[in-house]
Amino acid sequence: MIMNLEQRLRHKLATRTKPVGSLGRLEDIALRIGLIQQSTVPELHNPAIILFAADHGIACEGVSSCPREITHQMVLNFVAGGGGINVLARQHGIRLSVVDAGVDFDFEGLSGVVDAKVARGSNNMLYEPAMTIEQCERAMEWGRQMVETEFERGCNVIGFGEMGIGNSSPAALLLHKYSGIALEDCVGRGAGLSDSGLERKYSVLKSVARRYDVREPLQILATFGGLEIAMICGGVLQARRRNMVIIADGFIATSGFVAAHSMEPDILDNTLFSHLSHEKGHRAMLDYLGVEAILQLDLRLGEGTGVALAYPIIRSATLLINQMASFESAAVAETAI
Amino acid sequence: MIMNLEQRLRHKLATRTKPVGSLGRLEDIALRIGLIQQSTVPELHNPAIILFAADHGIACEGVSSCPREITHQMVLNFVAGGGGINVLARQHGIRLSVVDAGVDFDFEGLSGVVDAKVARGSNNMLYEPAMTIEQCERAMEWGRQMVETEFERGCNVIGFGEMGIGNSSPAALLLHKYSGIALEDCVGRGAGLSDSGLERKYSVLKSVARRYDVREPLQILATFGGLEIAMICGGVLQARRRNMVIIADGFIATSGFVAAHSMEPDILDNTLFSHLSHEKGHRAMLDYLGVEAILQLDLRLGEGTGVALAYPIIRSATLLINQMASFESAAVAETAI
Repeated sequence: MIMNLEQRLRHKLATRTKPVGSLGRLEDIALRIGLIQQSTVPELHNPAIILFAADHGIACEGVSSCPREITHQMVLNFVAGGGGINVLARQHGIRLSVVDAGVDFDFEGLSGVVDAKVARGSNNMLYEPAMTIEQCERAMEWGRQMVETEFERGCNVIGFGEMGIGNSSPAALLLHKYSGIALEDCVGRGAGLSDSGLERKYSVLKSVARRYDVREPLQILATFGGLEIAMICGGVLQARRRNMVIIADGFIATSGFVAAHSMEPDILDNTLFSHLSHEKGHRAMLDYLGVEAILQLDLRLGEGTGVALAYPIIRSATLLINQMASFESAAVAETAI
Repeated sequence: MIMNLEQRLRHKLATRTKPVGSLGRLEDIALRIGLIQQSTVPELHNPAIILFAADHGIACEGVSSCPREITHQMVLNFVAGGGGINVLARQHGIRLSVVDAGVDFDFEGLSGVVDAKVARGSNNMLYEPAMTIEQCERAMEWGRQMVETEFERGCNVIGFGEMGIGNSSPAALLLHKYSGIALEDCVGRGAGLSDSGLERKYSVLKSVARRYDVREPLQILATFGGLEIAMICGGVLQARRRNMVIIADGFIATSGFVAAHSMEPDILDNTLFSHLSHEKGHRAMLDYLGVEAILQLDLRLGEGTGVALAYPIIRSATLLINQMASFESAAVAETAI
């Protein structure tokens, strides 16, 4: 019998020295990466996380518990190596790039920040679209270019992180508009809104959602998105084109995947979802995409931290399928285990 | 205000550059390890997994889908480096020790297997207690000694794995006897029993459970346990005495923790539970102990694989609390984030 690739991968997994299926989700991951790479010896090389930061016009409507200057302060913190994602990227040997997608601050050519600033933040979408179509396309192009740089460095597994005060608002609106899920079920507490803050956020976002009648995927992204989310969207599309393994982070970063999915549904073939976050709306988002997350650790930090935490487990899946002995090679009785 | 250690740890976590609580379960883990080590700078050193292997008299009653010789074949596979746990231990720099706790095979002094053989397997508990009290005590003493060796090597974080065809049966009986949970809810498919196989297993274990009226913790372990499980129990008690961070694996290894807990409930202060396995009974076991697992990956392999997969996440928790910048040091506005 001649087996196709999927059959060969399943056969390889089933003949490793363990009860069939006993590595659970890790077997699904190994199979998925094997199918992406069209190989029974899937391997991950030069892992990278690109962290896009931007400010948001909607933040001045009191939709976040944090002041806007946190965005640029955190970018400086990432450059100094003190952020959560820095620690995790160092732990796992993941290359981290920090990108100014549209922060309302002049970094003055600071080394360690890629200058991809399309604007000093998005517009306040309560009054005008967050981005013009042209700005959105430029942002997507930056995302593509950043991924292309990683590809040229030999990277075949990539994740995306985000930092931007107020950006759970565009993420909620994008989920609502692309999926049709009720806005109420998409809006959460972000970094830590109180009950009254959450009410205010919902009321503001309801006004935004009603203001624009746009249907086309790119228009939705430009109208309700953000510069870092548009860069993630462009990056995901390019990573799919380069046939990388793509790892999604939490609620906000994954909204960029929802946008990319609306333009090219096949991105899901290449994507693993690192974690189910604590943010309301993330479960609905993953259900909408029809996917399951690897981790459930009640994270709600963003930055790509979920990607970095799931990475060693994803890597384990490739090491296990390649390095475990077979029943035959180990002389373990296969018939019954 | 003078803060006690827990307050200082919580303060340290709350002043790292992230929204309060946004690292979710990782913050709980960092707090727990800080409390174990009585330090605001918790660190993990020289991680180790001890894998205990043994055979089981009850296996000849058809309670497992695997033949008995798999136990020794898998020990040889571990020594050759081809098992799942070998791959994961190598990935994470975890020292793996393989211990013959009571395998029905003569390894003839094979290098790479610690000879702690108390007997060539436990007795068939359908007819007599699995171990004599003396055998059980010797097994526990071996567990203690193995942990002591790791402690002397500078290890402060340890996990335990197991290999033994038929050992989900003693694990189910131990859970039933220590917790009072109905036997039916403790018995699962192990490595992969069919419906009829599961029925047979339940019927055999029901007879075993009814045969002995023992109440004292050590007697329960000797009557219904296994040599590898008794070694894990002794190892856990010693690791608690040496104030190590202890990581529990799946259903079978954790039954050794249930036994240790019945003798010294405080072991829970030092223990993290790596994963919720696919085996029926594991959820009830964790609920009985009042704990939550870190991972849920539908694993059911044993060997300590869950320990090794959770280890990088546990290590992340310590790295994050120690290496992330504070709001003050990073000049990030703390008031609102």
